[in-house]
Amino acid sequence: MSSHPLDPVFHPRTVALFGVPSKADAWGAMFHQSLIDSGYDTSRMFLINPKADRIGDLPCYHTLLDVPEAVDHVISLVPAPVVPQLVDQCVAKGIRSLHLFTAGFSETGDAEMARVEQESVAKLRAAGIRTIGPNCLGLYVPASGMTFSGEFPMEPGNVFLISQSGANASEIIRSLTPRGVRFSKAVSFGNGADLKAHDFFDYAATDPDTDVVISYLEGVSHGRELFAALKRCAAVKPTIILKGGLTGAGARAANSHTGSLAGSREVFEAVCRQTGAIRVDSMDELQDLTVAVATSARTVAGRRVILVGGPGGFAVLSSDAIAAQDLELPETPEEAKRQIREFIPVAGTSVNNPIDASPRDREQRERMMHILCDSGFYDVVFSTTLGGDPTAWRGRGRRGAPNSDPDAGKSPEERAATEMERAKDGAKQLAALQAGIGVPILYIQRAFGETANREATAAFAEGIAAYPTVQRAAHTIRQMLDWRARREGLPVIF
Amino acid sequence: MSSHPLDPVFHPRTVALFGVPSKADAWGAMFHQSLIDSGYDTSRMFLINPKADRIGDLPCYHTLLDVPEAVDHVISLVPAPVVPQLVDQCVAKGIRSLHLFTAGFSETGDAEMARVEQESVAKLRAAGIRTIGPNCLGLYVPASGMTFSGEFPMEPGNVFLISQSGANASEIIRSLTPRGVRFSKAVSFGNGADLKAHDFFDYAATDPDTDVVISYLEGVSHGRELFAALKRCAAVKPTIILKGGLTGAGARAANSHTGSLAGSREVFEAVCRQTGAIRVDSMDELQDLTVAVATSARTVAGRRVILVGGPGGFAVLSSDAIAAQDLELPETPEEAKRQIREFIPVAGTSVNNPIDASPRDREQRERMMHILCDSGFYDVVFSTTLGGDPTAWRGRGRRGAPNSDPDAGKSPEERAATEMERAKDGAKQLAALQAGIGVPILYIQRAFGETANREATAAFAEGIAAYPTVQRAAHTIRQMLDWRARREGLPVIF
Repeated sequence: MSSHPLDPVFHPRTVALFGVPSKADAWGAMFHQSLIDSGYDTSRMFLINPKADRIGDLPCYHTLLDVPEAVDHVISLVPAPVVPQLVDQCVAKGIRSLHLFTAGFSETGDAEMARVEQESVAKLRAAGIRTIGPNCLGLYVPASGMTFSGEFPMEPGNVFLISQSGANASEIIRSLTPRGVRFSKAVSFGNGADLKAHDFFDYAATDPDTDVVISYLEGVSHGRELFAALKRCAAVKPTIILKGGLTGAGARAANSHTGSLAGSREVFEAVCRQTGAIRVDSMDELQDLTVAVATSARTVAGRRVILVGGPGGFAVLSSDAIAAQDLELPETPEEAKRQIREFIPVAGTSVNNPIDASPRDREQRERMMHILCDSGFYDVVFSTTLGGDPTAWRGRGRRGAPNSDPDAGKSPEERAATEMERAKDGAKQLAALQAGIGVPILYIQRAFGETANREATAAFAEGIAAYPTVQRAAHTIRQMLDWRARREGLPVIF
Repeated sequence: MSSHPLDPVFHPRTVALFGVPSKADAWGAMFHQSLIDSGYDTSRMFLINPKADRIGDLPCYHTLLDVPEAVDHVISLVPAPVVPQLVDQCVAKGIRSLHLFTAGFSETGDAEMARVEQESVAKLRAAGIRTIGPNCLGLYVPASGMTFSGEFPMEPGNVFLISQSGANASEIIRSLTPRGVRFSKAVSFGNGADLKAHDFFDYAATDPDTDVVISYLEGVSHGRELFAALKRCAAVKPTIILKGGLTGAGARAANSHTGSLAGSREVFEAVCRQTGAIRVDSMDELQDLTVAVATSARTVAGRRVILVGGPGGFAVLSSDAIAAQDLELPETPEEAKRQIREFIPVAGTSVNNPIDASPRDREQRERMMHILCDSGFYDVVFSTTLGGDPTAWRGRGRRGAPNSDPDAGKSPEERAATEMERAKDGAKQLAALQAGIGVPILYIQRAFGETANREATAAFAEGIAAYPTVQRAAHTIRQMLDWRARREGLPVIF
């Protein structure tokens, strides 16, 4: 197996935290605490602080050179003026990579600090050491035990996140996690003094653990290299980019933040079109498209939607929302209506797309879905229910009596566990239905909070995309269709 | 005090549920169960079912005429063919109002059932009885103990919701509740065979318990009356309308749902402009504007935003989002920057709008806000933090060490209570700050789930609007400004 030059950076065997504060609530203490909370093997983790001998349960070394073992990766938590000293120790110790959490360099606009940044990186490069940052949160690599938050799941996935901003990387990971998405790798690289966006796209393109590449970018300092790397990456893997700083106000904020020159919307849009990547406009779009390309939603081949399961007023607004995205909601074929009316009563129901029919049981529901989809009339199903016994879903503020709650009397933990089991069963049935009808299904969630998170996670695990609203599902399908059309001539990857 | 003719309909002293099912998990059982769950005085509630003598803990009468006391309001849960019989009993009993939950009338497209609907309503009108529905969920009036869901809060508020759809009424109430909004009255009126949208707008206009009127409409069968009622209502109270069925697909769904002819977007938009109401495009817009008109957000007088408190990458995307709504993000005046730099360090911060400064404590934060806002440079503050001790907000996945969580070891209930207290303190301080600087503050939430709900509720109680994203806050402010500009010549109500 051929290995990419960045492989060692993402898979350090040992980590040293340089300048880790002795107070648990100080800035920067989060790094070692997050690693511990996430189960990092502390025998592979070394703390450096010239003024401490122990921090918490761990021994503390006064310099990097005092560490008795080889150190692959160093996380710098010291103030900017101390960085030159740290760089010298890194070179002397012969580490492989340095992550400068430390801020206060080129992003401040101070010429002297920009010079220190450049010189430090040059010295490290000369010694064969790669640098992430400065001014960033660094690595989240579940397979290597690396993380910058104890809240992130340590179960690996197939999405690679490349983010200039640490706050946005955190937000992206935290918001995609409850939707079921898991990550192969994430990197927050801040000022990008050494390793830049193009290095990471280049790596992601051939990383065998990665199927989907998503990114938050601010500045583009090496346009030619970025274009080439994006071209390699987006040709073979769905590549989604949220670009900050495309307005005057945003560009000014980007300059304050990572010292970036942000570039124009038109140029960046053209780069995406020419490379086969897609540019999104917001965090919501980034999340929704990520879910789409990682599920059956990526296979939707046309604009004809059938909406199944919502009550009347919801169906009206949903129809408007679907039409607003230039998708179609074709009427149910007459013959299909006739067949469905044989077992669905008239009062309080509608069998004309959108369908509002409350089938009695799973068998009736499957029969209805086959009648509807065997017509060849529809490209995608929007379903407001998972599978499972329809009556089991009552008592949750939807239809049905509140006192029919089958979980009454259970503890919150038991309710959560039952709910998760039910969501898994429902998602499995929906996936089986999808396989049977041969039309991709999107799950439209009408629940909130943790219930919604459990359902989305269960659906995602079965390859089914869940969206919090019809608006977002419809918008995502439209984007997928437009994106696919623009990729003509490129390898078919969705 | 003068009383509106609809007052008795919204304030029944006694309620009979006609055709209440004897099985707790049947359709329709939710009505009496919701009333009981919400604390309705069961001595004022009568159950009617010809085949039962008791249902749960309550006696059951075989006909309405068997009820030994006066009945003000009847909720019909019987199938449509039984309605004529029920109507005769209502007339004989001399009730004041009937709510037909029963569906299966004009909305089915069946001419015979449409005729039954018309005749029933005519007979009731002749007897002085007003009808809500058919095909709807009826009344939610906290002050009268009326509700159609045991999940709704029974604490009264000042927002009147007029909804043709029951599902959408439920969704609106359920989604505004965690944002702090409470209701004076809500009505779901379905087919509107007797009481129609215009009757309710007319009532809401003079209802002393109502300050804000919001609505979900599908069809407009009495355009002239609606226009007149809207004109009366929107002149004196902020009136927000979500109109379903404005696309071809939506209009078709509306016709299946409530038998409505939906009308065109242009006509409806013109009606709103001429009456001073505002039309919104989605549930999110409806919620966000409702929060705005009920808080200090309604007083925002211009487009100059200052964003305070977000980390770098968030600030970049937020700046783009603010600019995308044609709002401005003026740079911090030089003199203000200089003053703030006296106590805010340079590394990792920005004092140029957007401000990313992490003040050390409340005093420092207030000093910074006064310097910024005393300049007269800004019309509105977007703040990503509530007030309170900034360090108390750590350990929640934002900045700071995870192990500094001050609530470690507490039970979920204790954590919730502590969190609510903290949110209340923070909201009070933010309100005090707002009063001090004389510029309206919007709270931009970066938390999720129940934490976000508690913060939003606490902020709303102090008259401060909370929004889940900068996008939505900025969009809402733009809508408020446009709306106010269009109301020129009408009474100044915001």
